[in-house]
Amino acid sequence: MENERIRVGITHGDINGVGYEVIMKTFCEPAMLEICTPIIYGNPKVMACHRNALEMNLSFSAIQSAEEAQDDRLNLVTVSDEEVKVDFGRPTREAGQAALAAMEQAIHDYKDGLIDVLVTAPINKATIQSDEFNFPGHTEYIQACVGDGAEALMVLMNERIKVALVTTHLPIARVAEAVNEEAIISKLRIFHDSLKRDFGISTPRIAVLALNPHAGDHGLLGSEEDTIIRPALQKASEEGIPCFGPYAADGFFGSRSYEQYDGVLAMYHDQGLTAFKALAMDEGVNFTAGLPIVRTSPDHGTAYDIAGKGKADEASMRQAVYTAIDVYRNRQVWDESHANPLEKLYHERREDDRRGPFMPPRRETPANEKD
Amino acid sequence: MENERIRVGITHGDINGVGYEVIMKTFCEPAMLEICTPIIYGNPKVMACHRNALEMNLSFSAIQSAEEAQDDRLNLVTVSDEEVKVDFGRPTREAGQAALAAMEQAIHDYKDGLIDVLVTAPINKATIQSDEFNFPGHTEYIQACVGDGAEALMVLMNERIKVALVTTHLPIARVAEAVNEEAIISKLRIFHDSLKRDFGISTPRIAVLALNPHAGDHGLLGSEEDTIIRPALQKASEEGIPCFGPYAADGFFGSRSYEQYDGVLAMYHDQGLTAFKALAMDEGVNFTAGLPIVRTSPDHGTAYDIAGKGKADEASMRQAVYTAIDVYRNRQVWDESHANPLEKLYHERREDDRRGPFMPPRRETPANEKD
Repeated sequence: MENERIRVGITHGDINGVGYEVIMKTFCEPAMLEICTPIIYGNPKVMACHRNALEMNLSFSAIQSAEEAQDDRLNLVTVSDEEVKVDFGRPTREAGQAALAAMEQAIHDYKDGLIDVLVTAPINKATIQSDEFNFPGHTEYIQACVGDGAEALMVLMNERIKVALVTTHLPIARVAEAVNEEAIISKLRIFHDSLKRDFGISTPRIAVLALNPHAGDHGLLGSEEDTIIRPALQKASEEGIPCFGPYAADGFFGSRSYEQYDGVLAMYHDQGLTAFKALAMDEGVNFTAGLPIVRTSPDHGTAYDIAGKGKADEASMRQAVYTAIDVYRNRQVWDESHANPLEKLYHERREDDRRGPFMPPRRETPANEKD
Repeated sequence: MENERIRVGITHGDINGVGYEVIMKTFCEPAMLEICTPIIYGNPKVMACHRNALEMNLSFSAIQSAEEAQDDRLNLVTVSDEEVKVDFGRPTREAGQAALAAMEQAIHDYKDGLIDVLVTAPINKATIQSDEFNFPGHTEYIQACVGDGAEALMVLMNERIKVALVTTHLPIARVAEAVNEEAIISKLRIFHDSLKRDFGISTPRIAVLALNPHAGDHGLLGSEEDTIIRPALQKASEEGIPCFGPYAADGFFGSRSYEQYDGVLAMYHDQGLTAFKALAMDEGVNFTAGLPIVRTSPDHGTAYDIAGKGKADEASMRQAVYTAIDVYRNRQVWDESHANPLEKLYHERREDDRRGPFMPPRRETPANEKD
């Protein structure tokens, strides 16, 4: 198992957007094939069309089933090989259907153990809607398909910061009423478990943002900090979850306080993601915590405005692949170390885990030193 | 007038915070005395106490009135020379009173024409409250004292971005109801005028953020984009204000779209300021647009946690001084060029203004070139 490469399933997403472009650019780098076995779910004719439009030089192997996937090459499971018109930058029904078909096949193969992790290229949330897909987005669909009853938590992350949200896709007028003690505690539990098992942090510290500006300014600008958030943090702390706050969001990001925490729990979408994306630039990854499946995606959308122009930056897609692999390995280490309680291992932050067993520093005699 | 240095009035703010520290660090740099004549409003004993605590080597001249202020030195108008206890990092009534007294004197001197611009060090909004000061903050107080009936607009800015807010200090539960067409159009007018006159941008382009996540996602996540924001932008455009949007806030900052606009109008506090402060780091400036007085301040607070420790970064205070001077000069240029309509001048972005009259490039003969 140790020597086997991790099989990364990648859905092609919306075929009129930048999905194929960022996937191909990611795997143009030969080193990527050394760290995983990529298995794209898509359409070979569509991929060839994108490759031609972008004048890229990249070979791939179209296969009929993920069972045929081989190491050291870019595998493409042929979900469909129909001639589908690629209409760069336009939302079309065909593109939505193609996105859904790839997703369904990947989920099916995940259940059969043919892929280890799932990376999803961006979809158009309008065109993918159908009888089979009636969800606000990927996260909710995947939770329904392979969640085993677990609750998903959307985490936006890069190497320096991980931001999770208490409420996600809500009009701003409904945010305040949706923030309650149960929701905060529930998200803190999932986040805390994920930081431990998925990221190998033994005692993760979570900063919690305030709901109101200036953290309510002692009640002048809202009372939820006192009536809801502080009691929730108190209860979570008593459960053994180290959590701190509530912090005024602008000062928290302005003073780079996030560098002192392993995770940041924001109260609503724009509060957490606006600052995150401003900081993460092109390297943000969307990770779905809380589910048995390891699933990541780039933090950008279909980017219709630059589709087919060769302008898309693949950094976020590449980070999404790295993150999926890292989380998969961290879970293996965690599960192994917790499988036999007699064999006690201490877990520290990931850098420390990777150090290996402690060795006293060896004194090297410099070559030019006499005696 | 051209040769006279701009007289920068600086209030000391909360004496238990980092105000004196960032003021003194700013004017430790001798070059600062060449670009302006600083006039601090404070207490010489308190300033000396801070100087000793920080072990700084800085001389200043205590004067009784701003009329005595001289160039090439750091002037301190003695608002009070009582022995006031400096209690680093603590909110005290005495500190609030001292902050208010300095502000009152500076406003008085501004009305008398003794200072040209006003830079305010941070106050504690709780301890300063009194019969004389019953406002959420500096901006509202200054608007009431010297606004001449004009409406102030809070603008947070650095060299790359200027963010203004439609609503400011409101609980999140009340934001949606406070966003209406009139408020948006009114803020757009003030912002537009300020970008022209205060920053010398001839045709400023303003990006307007959406209220809801994903800009409402075609009504799925809120309808205010369609019912309020788009109609407001339409009306403002018809008035001759180039404005664009509404843009989803996270994508707007993530894709650095702000680089393509002269100003960004956010709908509420944390939406605009969280991203701004994440980007601006230590160099953000709070500028009060819309009023006859030019007033700036650093974008940080009293920072009680590091008060008296020498850890405060003065970059934001220094930028606040620069910005006040720049705006004052830009207004002079604007007003002169608009005083006589026969004499038509074209205004471009500030870099261009500073170019001076066009001169063909001179061919220099390098010293080592023969012939």
